[in-house]
Amino acid sequence: MNRYLSLKSLSFDEIEDLVRLAQHLVREPINDSLKNKVVGLLFMNPSLRTLASFQAGASQLGGSSVVIQPGAGSWNLETRDGVVMDGSAQEHIREAIPVLAQYCDLLGIRCFAEGKDLDTDLDDALMPKMAKLCPKPFINMESAADHPCQALADWKLLNDLKVPKEGGKFVLSWAWHPRPLPYAVPLCVASMALLRGMELTVVYPEGFGLPDRSISELRQIGGDRLKVTHHREEATEGAHIVYAKSWAAPEFYGRPSEEAEARASLRDWCLKESWFANAQRDAKAMHCLPVRRNVEISDEILDGPRSVVVQEAANRLHVQKAVMMKLMENPNA
Amino acid sequence: MNRYLSLKSLSFDEIEDLVRLAQHLVREPINDSLKNKVVGLLFMNPSLRTLASFQAGASQLGGSSVVIQPGAGSWNLETRDGVVMDGSAQEHIREAIPVLAQYCDLLGIRCFAEGKDLDTDLDDALMPKMAKLCPKPFINMESAADHPCQALADWKLLNDLKVPKEGGKFVLSWAWHPRPLPYAVPLCVASMALLRGMELTVVYPEGFGLPDRSISELRQIGGDRLKVTHHREEATEGAHIVYAKSWAAPEFYGRPSEEAEARASLRDWCLKESWFANAQRDAKAMHCLPVRRNVEISDEILDGPRSVVVQEAANRLHVQKAVMMKLMENPNA
Amino acid sequence: MNRYLSLKSLSFDEIEDLVRLAQHLVREPINDSLKNKVVGLLFMNPSLRTLASFQAGASQLGGSSVVIQPGAGSWNLETRDGVVMDGSAQEHIREAIPVLAQYCDLLGIRCFAEGKDLDTDLDDALMPKMAKLCPKPFINMESAADHPCQALADWKLLNDLKVPKEGGKFVLSWAWHPRPLPYAVPLCVASMALLRGMELTVVYPEGFGLPDRSISELRQIGGDRLKVTHHREEATEGAHIVYAKSWAAPEFYGRPSEEAEARASLRDWCLKESWFANAQRDAKAMHCLPVRRNVEISDEILDGPRSVVVQEAANRLHVQKAVMMKLMENPNA
Repeated sequence: MNRYLSLKSLSFDEIEDLVRLAQHLVREPINDSLKNKVVGLLFMNPSLRTLASFQAGASQLGGSSVVIQPGAGSWNLETRDGVVMDGSAQEHIREAIPVLAQYCDLLGIRCFAEGKDLDTDLDDALMPKMAKLCPKPFINMESAADHPCQALADWKLLNDLKVPKEGGKFVLSWAWHPRPLPYAVPLCVASMALLRGMELTVVYPEGFGLPDRSISELRQIGGDRLKVTHHREEATEGAHIVYAKSWAAPEFYGRPSEEAEARASLRDWCLKESWFANAQRDAKAMHCLPVRRNVEISDEILDGPRSVVVQEAANRLHVQKAVMMKLMENPNA
Repeated sequence: MNRYLSLKSLSFDEIEDLVRLAQHLVREPINDSLKNKVVGLLFMNPSLRTLASFQAGASQLGGSSVVIQPGAGSWNLETRDGVVMDGSAQEHIREAIPVLAQYCDLLGIRCFAEGKDLDTDLDDALMPKMAKLCPKPFINMESAADHPCQALADWKLLNDLKVPKEGGKFVLSWAWHPRPLPYAVPLCVASMALLRGMELTVVYPEGFGLPDRSISELRQIGGDRLKVTHHREEATEGAHIVYAKSWAAPEFYGRPSEEAEARASLRDWCLKESWFANAQRDAKAMHCLPVRRNVEISDEILDGPRSVVVQEAANRLHVQKAVMMKLMENPNA
Repeated sequence: MNRYLSLKSLSFDEIEDLVRLAQHLVREPINDSLKNKVVGLLFMNPSLRTLASFQAGASQLGGSSVVIQPGAGSWNLETRDGVVMDGSAQEHIREAIPVLAQYCDLLGIRCFAEGKDLDTDLDDALMPKMAKLCPKPFINMESAADHPCQALADWKLLNDLKVPKEGGKFVLSWAWHPRPLPYAVPLCVASMALLRGMELTVVYPEGFGLPDRSISELRQIGGDRLKVTHHREEATEGAHIVYAKSWAAPEFYGRPSEEAEARASLRDWCLKESWFANAQRDAKAMHCLPVRRNVEISDEILDGPRSVVVQEAANRLHVQKAVMMKLMENPNA
């Protein structure tokens, strides 16, 4: 293993091993496993947690990091093959990535969905293509349809919270947002929940379900442990976790102004205490962050005892350190 | 002491202790007090000195640093409570700060005045609020109405220059600038001068005095050691230091175009050699930087023997290292 | 030697010594020569290779680095002397550089050509002026008319490739580009080729030659080893290296829209395999990067065996580490 592209590519036992290593790093945060090593972090999109936790994590493992932000201090990058580059992009990933791999011992890349064509984004082909250009250990820091560091952090949090694997009830709820958001987090979190052995219910207003092909893929992982519904009360019955997240409506993908109309009336999809009426008494609210307060989740939840969003983000640091250590064990694998 | 929000919260002896530690760090710049520690630096506004000196300082103390710039590579941050976040801010400080505190061992935040409402900015409530969200040692890297790292660096410089405490004459002069600037530096420098025991004269053209409530607060510190005047020649008589700095006119606060008219005729408020006619023979010119040449201070001063602005900036490094060391002595205090 | 402003200021033997040190660092990349040292990197213009390789290199030598980007997180910098700074620049290099030199042990600055006045840019006076403001070791990370780290990396690559010094045939070919580009790379690469003892042919379409005064300067270095021509086939005959690079047309300098017309018909100046018909069988294609694919160089070259652009960029790391080590041997020289 010298690249980490998706949680789905790991077995249950491999994931649990990584989570155990991460938990060990909570107790012993400092070691020398990245001594004299440089971690390259290429961000095509904004970041707070990923940027800070990878940089802090590299330092705590004795290494250092370099941040490259195309379009903000660095050249705009072209990702398409065969194109005549006479537009705004000054450099192609076919040069940029191999070059960075010459300077760095491990590379992480973030590149969000383009939001134009649904199938292109769900294919999620760009991140593996970029990984292929990199001869060094490689980490997906969020791609068009996956965010494996988030999924791993969330798995660890569920262990920390002692949410049962078998019989644990995980609700993924759509939430309102002013703009259509990518599927990366909802899809990787949904598959994480199923891979972990839990019952998953996805709840959303009509027209805002996850894409059909994604549901089919999730069904392949979880079979009838996956349920979808429009009824929030039904969905949250007995829930251990309600994970709020916004995402785009598949039928309007790439047409944000049409979608804006469709979602205009859905502002009550903002997670609040009343949603937890039939949930487990100590059910928790999760979100990958950044979260828009009183839009996706209400203040009463975020400031109350149900919110575990800060612990969730804290786990990003621990699991990413575990992933970096694992990838560096055998960097040329 | 595990937060540094204002010089005013320290006693004279505590300040002198910090300055002595800083002076020790001039001679012995390298130590291990931040070994394996990560300093998080959150900049809501631009910086040269603060950014470079905190990063260099963290390195010299054996630690590392992470820089987060909302709106430039990281998410825009909302600071108001209770707001429905359906605008441009993607994340709230109520999540961002606790999360960064999970990754970092010490946090510094810069957040300038909004420049809309005078009392809000003078209340300077946001920085303490942000400090409260941070369970780790915390440093104010410039808030709406304070800049305690600058004040401490300036105190040290005055010691370096052997400017007398009792009887030292410190002139804070308004200077022209194309835009209305915050009160953070003039206010913290004024209180520093008084806390240090000096005579302080604030000189400014009519209408451009410091806000009344600020003058009252300064009067509480310095009593009749504080003088205000419109007469430059009178002000600089016998001065050891002339500190040039621009600031907004209180009566036009939040109305920059009206203020622009009021200051249009004040371009001769640019510090030049002739102002020093009656000052101490070796009187020095200070400025916190960045300084607009031939606008706030003339080339003849900045390129001549009176200018100590580079030494002044150099002290930022030394005092900030002292502050970080002090805060890390007892990080959970 | 405590500043590195131009390859031309070094003797052949000094250059070969640096290249040998760089080659040693390929085999032994880690050492302590920058232990406890801070490298300041001031970028007035975008960067990928320079930013990442200097930061990675500083880490590998046991040091750390600080990045300052005026206009993006840091203040806009004024470079002209004597100006009344009432425009957009908030700080002057006369303060910014001495201040950074107080925090850092070595400073690198990138500042591209302004592209307005040909003679001003060819005079390349700003970088030495900035170096003069810096009392610490100083590196030119690309100026208006020079890029000595690139030139040194390219020299090393030619050694790596065993391109003969005497009798080696180096072709510098103009390439199409949507915008007029500075002369920094073509000029420093041309003088590098001549300093290394090779035959240099510069080939370009009519009107797009290097400036006359630059050709005179190159002639002084290389005498009749320098040839210029419009005929690509003639130029590449027997070539060991074809270095593709775009640059502005001297006669239209500072008038980009007029130049755009002049270059509109020159899109076939995109390096492709057919250009190598009469070259050495294993002739290589070089470019400093970033390269616009299918604009300056075709995919068939960049993805084929002739391209050495990634190795070329890799050498940036090694030679810059050598330069930093050399400059730090005697930092106050």
